[in-house]
Amino acid sequence: MRLYIGLVHYPVYNKNREKIASAITNFDLHDLSRLARTYGAKRLFIITPLKKQHILAERISAHWTSGYGAGYNIHRKEALETIKVVSAIEAAIDAIMETEGEQPLIITTDASRQSGRDISYSHTREILDSERTVFLIFGTAWGLHEDILKMSDFILDPIEGNTDYNHLSVRTAAGIILDRLAGRYE
Amino acid sequence: MRLYIGLVHYPVYNKNREKIASAITNFDLHDLSRLARTYGAKRLFIITPLKKQHILAERISAHWTSGYGAGYNIHRKEALETIKVVSAIEAAIDAIMETEGEQPLIITTDASRQSGRDISYSHTREILDSERTVFLIFGTAWGLHEDILKMSDFILDPIEGNTDYNHLSVRTAAGIILDRLAGRYE
Repeated sequence: MRLYIGLVHYPVYNKNREKIASAITNFDLHDLSRLARTYGAKRLFIITPLKKQHILAERISAHWTSGYGAGYNIHRKEALETIKVVSAIEAAIDAIMETEGEQPLIITTDASRQSGRDISYSHTREILDSERTVFLIFGTAWGLHEDILKMSDFILDPIEGNTDYNHLSVRTAAGIILDRLAGRYE
Repeated sequence: MRLYIGLVHYPVYNKNREKIASAITNFDLHDLSRLARTYGAKRLFIITPLKKQHILAERISAHWTSGYGAGYNIHRKEALETIKVVSAIEAAIDAIMETEGEQPLIITTDASRQSGRDISYSHTREILDSERTVFLIFGTAWGLHEDILKMSDFILDPIEGNTDYNHLSVRTAAGIILDRLAGRYE
């Protein structure tokens, strides 16, 4: 499976649907890197143009990959090693192309159903099973800005639980989505 | 569906497999209550015997259900209203019995496969579909103490991604498990 995941901090929406850069959250880095490692995603890109946020993300990551945490918890080291901090989605795409030798299929996620370029979980799973390189992109705050949705090849169907309520954290949503795309169980 | 979920802070294991009480985490309360609400679980029990932790959990919850947060974010209010803080698993079971008029089937979760009382996702889903009351219990820290595993009717199969790595956060694991038990998608 040639799956890459990205967590976007800019451009995303705030509560008032304005374009903002959100702050990096320690829990996101830990939860999503552990998830990436469990499901065999090849890299987790943390995307933010803010230089101070790069330093923060790299400090957290370094603590667990080469600092005190590396000896304290080997499993956390293995997870956080999947992280690469980049300034923009384009930089992540370039890095993927360099590794895989092909343009990744870009699939974004959104809490609302998007007509036109929507894609189902089963279809996305088939694409992954065919060894096509896929870059799956998640948003923070109130979700990915439409500029990002516009540049994607497909927009994954939203998670619909079994109620009309649909406000999961990105940590929970990403877990559910990766399991739908790559999990196996009885 | 008559599903209740519980998050246990005591008794759980620490890194050295000692019996401890873990601290309540703000992110757990938010992520798990939003998850419970999305999938229609009837209540999220936060289980800790520490009185100061009760006060903390109730302060977080009150901020979003009746304080400033209730007006700021109505979706968060709806989620956090599913929380009830109790001192022990027995108190949660009593509350469930009072509502449902029957003893819940107790299903615990563990990151390792347990022989003997293990149950698959498809079997658990059938039980939920039959309207039997189920209490699904998650552990914090390094997982549920064996005293809790022993008192359960079944132990749910662990999540196995598609690697040998299996160290998800409880926030991510709970999302994957609820989706496997109650999610619907194409």
